[in-house]
Amino acid sequence: MKQLNKLINHIVNRVNVNLREPLVDVGPFVQDLIPKDSFALYYAFYALTNNHPLKFHFRHSSVGGTYFLGKCKVNHSILYKSDIRGDELKRKGSIVECNGQQIKLRDDEVIKIRDSFLMKTLVHNNSHDPENLEAFKISNTVSLHYANIHGTSVEGCFLEPFASVDLSICHDCAVGAYSYVQAGELSHKRINPGRIWVKADGAFEFNYQYPEEILNKYIRMENHRPKGILMDFFDERKEDFIPIYSAVNPENIVDVPDGASVSPYAVLKGECKVEKNVLIAQRAYLEDSYMGPGANAQENCYIINSTYDGDDVTAHGGKVIHCHLGRQVFVGFNSFLNGKEDCKIEIGTGSIIMPHTIIDAIEPLKIPDNFLVWGYISKQEDLEMHSIPLSDFAALKGQFRLGNMTFEGIGAKFVDGFRHRIKHILECNGAFWDGSEETAGHAQQTQDISFNILQPYPEGELQGLYPELSIDPLEPSDL
Amino acid sequence: MKQLNKLINHIVNRVNVNLREPLVDVGPFVQDLIPKDSFALYYAFYALTNNHPLKFHFRHSSVGGTYFLGKCKVNHSILYKSDIRGDELKRKGSIVECNGQQIKLRDDEVIKIRDSFLMKTLVHNNSHDPENLEAFKISNTVSLHYANIHGTSVEGCFLEPFASVDLSICHDCAVGAYSYVQAGELSHKRINPGRIWVKADGAFEFNYQYPEEILNKYIRMENHRPKGILMDFFDERKEDFIPIYSAVNPENIVDVPDGASVSPYAVLKGECKVEKNVLIAQRAYLEDSYMGPGANAQENCYIINSTYDGDDVTAHGGKVIHCHLGRQVFVGFNSFLNGKEDCKIEIGTGSIIMPHTIIDAIEPLKIPDNFLVWGYISKQEDLEMHSIPLSDFAALKGQFRLGNMTFEGIGAKFVDGFRHRIKHILECNGAFWDGSEETAGHAQQTQDISFNILQPYPEGELQGLYPELSIDPLEPSDL
Repeated sequence: MKQLNKLINHIVNRVNVNLREPLVDVGPFVQDLIPKDSFALYYAFYALTNNHPLKFHFRHSSVGGTYFLGKCKVNHSILYKSDIRGDELKRKGSIVECNGQQIKLRDDEVIKIRDSFLMKTLVHNNSHDPENLEAFKISNTVSLHYANIHGTSVEGCFLEPFASVDLSICHDCAVGAYSYVQAGELSHKRINPGRIWVKADGAFEFNYQYPEEILNKYIRMENHRPKGILMDFFDERKEDFIPIYSAVNPENIVDVPDGASVSPYAVLKGECKVEKNVLIAQRAYLEDSYMGPGANAQENCYIINSTYDGDDVTAHGGKVIHCHLGRQVFVGFNSFLNGKEDCKIEIGTGSIIMPHTIIDAIEPLKIPDNFLVWGYISKQEDLEMHSIPLSDFAALKGQFRLGNMTFEGIGAKFVDGFRHRIKHILECNGAFWDGSEETAGHAQQTQDISFNILQPYPEGELQGLYPELSIDPLEPSDL
Repeated sequence: MKQLNKLINHIVNRVNVNLREPLVDVGPFVQDLIPKDSFALYYAFYALTNNHPLKFHFRHSSVGGTYFLGKCKVNHSILYKSDIRGDELKRKGSIVECNGQQIKLRDDEVIKIRDSFLMKTLVHNNSHDPENLEAFKISNTVSLHYANIHGTSVEGCFLEPFASVDLSICHDCAVGAYSYVQAGELSHKRINPGRIWVKADGAFEFNYQYPEEILNKYIRMENHRPKGILMDFFDERKEDFIPIYSAVNPENIVDVPDGASVSPYAVLKGECKVEKNVLIAQRAYLEDSYMGPGANAQENCYIINSTYDGDDVTAHGGKVIHCHLGRQVFVGFNSFLNGKEDCKIEIGTGSIIMPHTIIDAIEPLKIPDNFLVWGYISKQEDLEMHSIPLSDFAALKGQFRLGNMTFEGIGAKFVDGFRHRIKHILECNGAFWDGSEETAGHAQQTQDISFNILQPYPEGELQGLYPELSIDPLEPSDL
């Protein structure tokens, strides 16, 4: 345990040096956050499959409860119950276009985590830093509960709970709770809690700011610890995960048709039905719900008493309760769609629920087809100020304001970008699989997977830390 | 699967080259021995603890169901449901005396397994090859069900089921089923099935030969596969192990007092009681039995309806049914003491049951205190030709014959050697622990252990093989 305390102090100092401006002391957020016994209590696991390049190296780190896929290096870091998903890393020889130049990758990309503390954080996609195409870097960073580090290299950053940094590059930034940032290259910035910020240089900028009193109900920091409805929601359901983490090969109780994949580390409760090409990721939670063909539920998603017509996306951390989703609905990161038995939420085909949207229904709600939805909604009339038909949005040019939302730029680029990305997500997940290798995605490729469990030193000075581990692919040519 | 077949052929060729003389073709013993699906079905596990030097390296191998402890390298080999116990390897700086010379170890000893096929084999203790003190070598070797490679470097050998090679050095030898060899340096020898051979150069030689028709009842090869009562005994109980291998942290149902240790991978059935300083190893099986203070049950031991008064040793593979053991009884490797409800076996204090002894009682049997027992016994009167008071044996000088047993040399050296070894085993296992570090042994040192599970490629060309894995200890000085 002595060495683990030294490691925590080491990380705090490294991060604080980076965060001189904006001035943040990450110490109180991190010190004593994880009960000391827990470091040695939970195992880590990495996936073994023929479908992804594979290489792991763990050194002087504690990685309890964390799931690794792909190529990852972890050095002098604490990763607690996090997901390090390297299945969308770029491969050697692939071409990246940047400013009209075509750059060829000299090696497979590797997720490189150094001197960082990640608490229940999801790392996914790949580096969008054109200067570091072969490395998805996370260094000198503290990231707290249910943060998403998605396609964003972060160096010297502090992410509060439920923050998402998406397809960006962040240096020395402090990102507030429940803020969503997709804004290119950022440096030495403080981003307020509850800000939804999507920016493409020379094309558009979208901003929404949650009112403080509303945000605080759902997520706030109290004495450096997260509180609120979102935290309670997770806490109330965490016991359901215990049985699946106690079995070596947990088994699911649901029929999994051809081309679909249900992680053995997902929770399925009640009556669930999963159609073809559906993907249910590890740490997803499905209860009394129907997943139509090609629909997916990613890490930390909770889908309860809901029906998905098909080809719907629930991005990382999306929570969908008492909802009916038409076809091709997109629910963004960490959204909280909280319908009730008598206040159902109906979402029309093709609609886009922006990341970090909260719909906490106090009456039945209906979102028409092909709408863009954002911000905080509790009644049907709230939709007037928090949604707009996608076709109207695509027609925007110049400045636009609706309630707490501002938009500037070319609406068509914003809408096309979103539509393009949703299609890409569905492709990646294998929603359109027709039996061919070309159309296969995560749902098909994660079927033949095995999980390897790693446990830390159970006692003594090294308690909670892991030995140094290298795992390399077997080269058939060796024989 | 293609690569696994190539690996099997590679091993067969390597071993056959070594076994030109005596001429053995190991191919038919190994080909199709393990159902192809099973290679990918079972996980391997290695232990992590602060109490033993730690280092693992697995390369181009299949190690399903195998347990590793200590420092082990495995290269181009198949280890199936075997135990590679490196907890008695010699440490860097320790002194080995050989021919009056004192040799200091320049490194920690490592078990090095190359180009070998081990089926349900136990590897334990350390190298007794003075030419290779830092390496416990197993290469170009095929070893079958429940063989014991104990403190014996084996190169180019074939061990049939239930064979034990103990504290020896074997080059290019074929060791028959159920034969026990402790005979110094052996080269290009064929050892018949059912031969018990203990030899110390210039001191003594003990020989016993099982009658063929009796041995065949218990263990024989039929179409290159093992058959007989001993195999049936294991097969009938193997289902009992399934639940413990399905849990990440299997829990035992028995109270474990201070200083005692019960492996989570042992089976405990019915009413069992374990006293202080008892050690129950992984893959041991205890049913309705009492283990007095300091008693132990090692790998592949089955103790059923029996009582141990204390400080008793059940060496690897010992099976003890309906027996009552007085204090400090020793039951040697792979012995089969098969008492019955109405034919109990009583063994007096201080008696030594030689390795590979079969007592299959058809009437109640009583062995007095301080006797040496060997060979095949089913009735009380058989003891006349298969046992002798240890004090009488210690008085032997020159040649001695009793039934199928011959002895030549100095009896006192034989008896003293045995007594010394039993004391050493009890010390190693922590039977005499008084709370001090000096008296601690395996029972105390394996309490704070965690198990790491490794799984092979689940599908495809590499199915059943493992990625290349290196596991090194964490160096606290790194921070």
